Amino acid sequence: MSRSVFTGEREYFPDVGAIPFEGRESDNPLAFKFYDAKKVIGGKTMEEHLRFAVCYWHTFCAKGADPFGRDTQVFAWDDAPDAMTAARQRMDAAFEFASKLGVPYYCFHDVDMSPAGADVRESERNLQTMVELAAERQRATGMKLLWGTANLFTHPRYMNGAATNPDFRVVAQAGAQVKAALDATVALGGENYVFWGGREGYMCLQNTDTRTEQENLARFLTMARDYGRSIGFKGTFLIEPKPMEPTKHQYDFDAQTVIGFLRHYGLDGDFKLNIEANHATLAGHTFAHELQMCTDAGLLGSIDANRGDYQNGWDTDQFPTDLYDAVTAMMVVLADGGFKTGGLNFDARVRRESVDMQDIFLGHIGGMDNFARGLEIAQRLLEDSPYQQWKADRYQSFRDGKGLAFRNGELDLAALAGLAQEYGEPVATSGKQELFENLVNQYIA
Amino acid sequence: MSRSVFTGEREYFPDVGAIPFEGRESDNPLAFKFYDAKKVIGGKTMEEHLRFAVCYWHTFCAKGADPFGRDTQVFAWDDAPDAMTAARQRMDAAFEFASKLGVPYYCFHDVDMSPAGADVRESERNLQTMVELAAERQRATGMKLLWGTANLFTHPRYMNGAATNPDFRVVAQAGAQVKAALDATVALGGENYVFWGGREGYMCLQNTDTRTEQENLARFLTMARDYGRSIGFKGTFLIEPKPMEPTKHQYDFDAQTVIGFLRHYGLDGDFKLNIEANHATLAGHTFAHELQMCTDAGLLGSIDANRGDYQNGWDTDQFPTDLYDAVTAMMVVLADGGFKTGGLNFDARVRRESVDMQDIFLGHIGGMDNFARGLEIAQRLLEDSPYQQWKADRYQSFRDGKGLAFRNGELDLAALAGLAQEYGEPVATSGKQELFENLVNQYIA
Amino acid sequence: MSRSVFTGEREYFPDVGAIPFEGRESDNPLAFKFYDAKKVIGGKTMEEHLRFAVCYWHTFCAKGADPFGRDTQVFAWDDAPDAMTAARQRMDAAFEFASKLGVPYYCFHDVDMSPAGADVRESERNLQTMVELAAERQRATGMKLLWGTANLFTHPRYMNGAATNPDFRVVAQAGAQVKAALDATVALGGENYVFWGGREGYMCLQNTDTRTEQENLARFLTMARDYGRSIGFKGTFLIEPKPMEPTKHQYDFDAQTVIGFLRHYGLDGDFKLNIEANHATLAGHTFAHELQMCTDAGLLGSIDANRGDYQNGWDTDQFPTDLYDAVTAMMVVLADGGFKTGGLNFDARVRRESVDMQDIFLGHIGGMDNFARGLEIAQRLLEDSPYQQWKADRYQSFRDGKGLAFRNGELDLAALAGLAQEYGEPVATSGKQELFENLVNQYIA
Amino acid sequence: MSRSVFTGEREYFPDVGAIPFEGRESDNPLAFKFYDAKKVIGGKTMEEHLRFAVCYWHTFCAKGADPFGRDTQVFAWDDAPDAMTAARQRMDAAFEFASKLGVPYYCFHDVDMSPAGADVRESERNLQTMVELAAERQRATGMKLLWGTANLFTHPRYMNGAATNPDFRVVAQAGAQVKAALDATVALGGENYVFWGGREGYMCLQNTDTRTEQENLARFLTMARDYGRSIGFKGTFLIEPKPMEPTKHQYDFDAQTVIGFLRHYGLDGDFKLNIEANHATLAGHTFAHELQMCTDAGLLGSIDANRGDYQNGWDTDQFPTDLYDAVTAMMVVLADGGFKTGGLNFDARVRRESVDMQDIFLGHIGGMDNFARGLEIAQRLLEDSPYQQWKADRYQSFRDGKGLAFRNGELDLAALAGLAQEYGEPVATSGKQELFENLVNQYIA
Repeated sequence: MSRSVFTGEREYFPDVGAIPFEGRESDNPLAFKFYDAKKVIGGKTMEEHLRFAVCYWHTFCAKGADPFGRDTQVFAWDDAPDAMTAARQRMDAAFEFASKLGVPYYCFHDVDMSPAGADVRESERNLQTMVELAAERQRATGMKLLWGTANLFTHPRYMNGAATNPDFRVVAQAGAQVKAALDATVALGGENYVFWGGREGYMCLQNTDTRTEQENLARFLTMARDYGRSIGFKGTFLIEPKPMEPTKHQYDFDAQTVIGFLRHYGLDGDFKLNIEANHATLAGHTFAHELQMCTDAGLLGSIDANRGDYQNGWDTDQFPTDLYDAVTAMMVVLADGGFKTGGLNFDARVRRESVDMQDIFLGHIGGMDNFARGLEIAQRLLEDSPYQQWKADRYQSFRDGKGLAFRNGELDLAALAGLAQEYGEPVATSGKQELFENLVNQYIA
Repeated sequence: MSRSVFTGEREYFPDVGAIPFEGRESDNPLAFKFYDAKKVIGGKTMEEHLRFAVCYWHTFCAKGADPFGRDTQVFAWDDAPDAMTAARQRMDAAFEFASKLGVPYYCFHDVDMSPAGADVRESERNLQTMVELAAERQRATGMKLLWGTANLFTHPRYMNGAATNPDFRVVAQAGAQVKAALDATVALGGENYVFWGGREGYMCLQNTDTRTEQENLARFLTMARDYGRSIGFKGTFLIEPKPMEPTKHQYDFDAQTVIGFLRHYGLDGDFKLNIEANHATLAGHTFAHELQMCTDAGLLGSIDANRGDYQNGWDTDQFPTDLYDAVTAMMVVLADGGFKTGGLNFDARVRRESVDMQDIFLGHIGGMDNFARGLEIAQRLLEDSPYQQWKADRYQSFRDGKGLAFRNGELDLAALAGLAQEYGEPVATSGKQELFENLVNQYIA
Repeated sequence: MSRSVFTGEREYFPDVGAIPFEGRESDNPLAFKFYDAKKVIGGKTMEEHLRFAVCYWHTFCAKGADPFGRDTQVFAWDDAPDAMTAARQRMDAAFEFASKLGVPYYCFHDVDMSPAGADVRESERNLQTMVELAAERQRATGMKLLWGTANLFTHPRYMNGAATNPDFRVVAQAGAQVKAALDATVALGGENYVFWGGREGYMCLQNTDTRTEQENLARFLTMARDYGRSIGFKGTFLIEPKPMEPTKHQYDFDAQTVIGFLRHYGLDGDFKLNIEANHATLAGHTFAHELQMCTDAGLLGSIDANRGDYQNGWDTDQFPTDLYDAVTAMMVVLADGGFKTGGLNFDARVRRESVDMQDIFLGHIGGMDNFARGLEIAQRLLEDSPYQQWKADRYQSFRDGKGLAFRNGELDLAALAGLAQEYGEPVATSGKQELFENLVNQYIA
Repeated sequence: MSRSVFTGEREYFPDVGAIPFEGRESDNPLAFKFYDAKKVIGGKTMEEHLRFAVCYWHTFCAKGADPFGRDTQVFAWDDAPDAMTAARQRMDAAFEFASKLGVPYYCFHDVDMSPAGADVRESERNLQTMVELAAERQRATGMKLLWGTANLFTHPRYMNGAATNPDFRVVAQAGAQVKAALDATVALGGENYVFWGGREGYMCLQNTDTRTEQENLARFLTMARDYGRSIGFKGTFLIEPKPMEPTKHQYDFDAQTVIGFLRHYGLDGDFKLNIEANHATLAGHTFAHELQMCTDAGLLGSIDANRGDYQNGWDTDQFPTDLYDAVTAMMVVLADGGFKTGGLNFDARVRRESVDMQDIFLGHIGGMDNFARGLEIAQRLLEDSPYQQWKADRYQSFRDGKGLAFRNGELDLAALAGLAQEYGEPVATSGKQELFENLVNQYIA
């Protein structure tokens, strides 16, 4: 991408210029220590590998409110006589920010980019207007759209669900929003389209017909898929699992639940998964586990990069600064051949207490440095260390002879039982977990 | 079943006779307050509805050891000169206990009933010997086998997994055990055969090829299914989900994961799920949720009735004394038409500190009373209360008109979006959660 | 209290009258099934035992917003030309609601009752104005103030803490609010004054001087205590523990942490604890455990009655409908001699989806019925059942002889070791947990 | 310490010699990459800073059993005709292992080192015999005893608690064991004596008199303290908090609970805390948090170094390989002036699947390298980075003027409120969490 910095009519981050790479010895908090966009790792640049995206909602819309407190942040771009002017200013701020940071992609919900109107028509017109401006900004900066989506959870009408709402009239509203968001995504050349079903679940099992609701969800997604393809969308549809919050239970609980759902309803040819680190941990999994389940199924699409807090049972959406997470995630991504249409979207927000405009840069710099470092370490572990060999050696017995026959379906249970008698008691083989863990730590540098 | 009390050569619970039903005003701890086996609820007796089973392992084998302490319990039936004599005594104790309690079913692992021998052949011979005795005891008492299973987790050879072990020789050992356990189950007229994959998972994602391991699991289950059908097994194969423990992650994490797995590998025609309450909560779900996911998929098989402790993150396997759990579970079971081949197996053990022989009776009595009560309340909620109507009313808009057309797949996204414009903003509809919750409490009596 | 229904200039709940007691067979959702205010249990009426309070914030201020969604509820009392008019209308609605429900107490934060002004002086004047009106309404209805408090967490200035803020100027603001709230509480005859330190904790251990912050907290509470006593406050100061949320870690983590803090800083003569059920479970404890720790220390003050959701790791503040919670809590409260200045405040809110005005009544009715029932069952367990005797029997060995000498500090370690040799191996004694659990279930009716 | 390798009559780890330091580029799994014992960091050697200890129980006694499986490990030292011979062999193995690893300290429970006898007298004689041998081995190797303790949880007699048992006869048994273990600790020059109250808690709140039990605990600890001092123990008594497991609730829940307990019973002059990382996380805290609470109270004693698994709700006792844990822990330890009598004891065990004898070395090497690295990074963060200054700057307002007067207790609430009016609304100050987090990551090398 071009690193020319964009500024609109007004500069929203006047104290920050293009973030340079200065290396790990630099004491400049506003410089990259590890992310060197053009550095080549295993045949691709860091930029090509990581495909970073800035998200519209946390960074340009959310202002720090939490369940116990009001907004703490004040954004200059909100200072406008009307909602559409504010939306234009916000877009300028977003492109300025992303171009200064040097991130090639962005992601948005319909309502982040464009204010809802008095009715469906006006909402759509507003969105079209903003999409035209976004297209212009994309051309000016070289930025691209990683994915678009429709926000089907903030408006009160969705309190009982969107596609899974017991009231068909609400499902229709959701349909209108998704149609418009698909139109917008295609217009902006989006490489993916995401569904996060924040309220597709239940608050109370007793008042809910879960079977009907999940069938309706499948129907809705099928209709969206068909519409998207009909208007020329060539990218990937993505479902982002989350186990709960805001609902007590969300149908798209985790990767395996979503994979089973997609296969059952014949959607796995068009849909893949968008894995968020914090959603993984809320579901009782590690981030790397969720990614691995997706690659095992051939359904790893994209990543929402952030982290949670293991002492807090909600979605904290912190910037991804845990190096172990970055290393183990990139090991899975690299072993899967790298991202195709997906990338690393920072579904993260600065803390409510981080009220300096600079803090937004610091959050992203920390996250980008961490994944750049994770990429390098993962690459070395996979290519330079004995890791892959050690792992493969554990499964040697399935590569030939009866073990291979087993894998090929050439043994029946009686034959297998016969082998047990023939082999006698197997010699115990160490799992060598400590050896693997020490190796990872050794390569962390 | 016959309520004739069985005693073998020796009486192991001489201080306890057949447990009578005495009603809720009784102060006799060794009497049922709610479980009245022949009482008819909705056309079936309590006994026919609940299909209670005693489990061999917790009640007759486990003696109270925990990770920080040795056995606390002393069982008279263990006092024997050799393992086979002890096994016979244990079986007598089991049938005495179950017949005094008045439970129609039991469940066992191969190694609960019969000691492992020096090699596969001897283990099988031991099992066959014990199966013959069990068949005799079944005839004498009228008791039946709810399900059999093979223990593929206690022996050190399975430390890295059984069907998913990286060493094919261990997979073969697992095959031999499953074959023999299937033979035993068929010989005893077992109505189900269970797989709980305690070590089918991983301790360390980095040393594990999860894809190969899960494919091997599917292959193994397919072979077991084929063998079972070939020897005349007409019952249901069951998978029991658990998210973790003893492994860090178990592949059969929860109901949705297992449902997706069964469908993907074409096993959902023969396999259903055995839901354990404590496993549900460890996976971040309620017991009723897991049951509901199974019935939605037409795959509810059986129940392992127990409870966990919400402050403790491991499988405590306590007796199921929570009335809400019993009510909400029985609501799902009744709405599904009741158990077919499945039942309520007490996968529960008295606390390590409950060292009186009487305590085993108290644990079971408490669990049986609780589910008897849950059955009655659930039946009244479903039949006598406005519950079903209230719930159905929420989905009224899908019963005709455009809502029905949506469900029938007759709308595309553009048409749906058009309806949104036509309908305008929907009126908000209360979810009435408090109304539903108050109703449940009102019916708890 | 008088059950005369209060209505102000406008009736805010015109479709609901005074909630009657109709008994458990009633099908009227707007009637009590169990709470019969004048029914005498163990020498006191239910009303005297339970001392129910309605809370201002959830019921009359909060409108259903959550981290992923906007307000869903529309309150007629908010429809006003200015904030003070709205505050007066809200107060009328609160007294109307409470008088229809028949609850003798209410609780408030300064900012619930009265809008913040442009500066400290104006805020105080607003509060004084509203306090005068509240006093008038109390006289008219017979309602009383269970406790007052200052909201030191919603305003952005408190994002880094109130009494523990690193900026002394913020501490001063907190001081001004607490002073005014104490004045208001005394003016209204409040029986307690509460501190919930929502943001007295940290988001990030690395940027925090926890020692300084906790010393400042102790200093601040000491100043508040001294001021309160100087203006004639005779009631109890209360600290309400919570482990986290909104902060990552809150200093008042749980009962034992707060008890240790109060004792260390010499505040345990004036302060007791206000235990919230949902906070207990977030801290990894049961509700009854937290109450028991307080009574053991002689520091049980009051209760915030609600419940959480064991599958959701945040404060859901649901109405307390779990009967086990009510029974076990009331057992502790009754064993402690009942409430003194404290009571049962419904720190609970209807679900975001419960948008009918009636739902607020349903939530409270469900909670009141549940605690009324819990009271009756607890009383019977303590007075009519063998419970107390069984429990006392376990500790028999400390009532005389060497056991009593041990308790009296009359043995040294060498003497104790000598007794071990003399006694020999003790006979194992069953903990009888299943017996206790079955007893509780038997008494649940 | 001397690095002369000790071997007894038999060499138990013949394939492993003294573990050398080879630096991070070494590919030798049996070499240190970071731990260079004599390297000086801030005026002390790594060895002096870290004071590593090997624990007897996990490493030489436990053989891999878990709640679902039998022992997997086979130890050559267990091969003996009688228990005392095995104990001597085990001791030789322990000293060989520790001397090859180069660890200066060890820790033990009475029953790890010496088999229980038929009665109290024989148990004590066995222990004395083994203590004499241990003293000889200490002289031969230069190794020292970090701490001793009595195991009051494994024997069935302690199932209902040790010092808190409802049966006084069991309390007496506990007294005999503690007396003998104190004698042993003093005889071996132990620098600390530890109490981990594994079963000092409850399984069921309803059958437990928590007040009596905790008073008994305080009485017991007081007696032990007095006895220890009477026999010349000059070291530190330590309590190791844990929230649960094996009990449902353990009285020594977390650091703050224990600190409050010690202060309340006047034990804080002799007792400090031994913080275990895995216990911290089970209690809902970070490891660093628990350490910080101790240093704030002047009560940080020692560390049990290990880690848990955030997806598993039990004590996994894994080797401490998380670098963030090591860095943040060492920051607290260094800021507290380093260890006094305490040290870093590896309360960790290799995984059940790690059955190679080498794996025990790998686990310890990984843990030692990790803490060596954590020490270096922590030292650089505290001494070379802006960390301390940034943190101190946040609290600047309390260093003079009214802020200092507040801290000195020179303001009353009215004066504080007056300042609020005078100051007006404070300017918001960023918490700069992202800046702090990025700094830590930058220094991780």
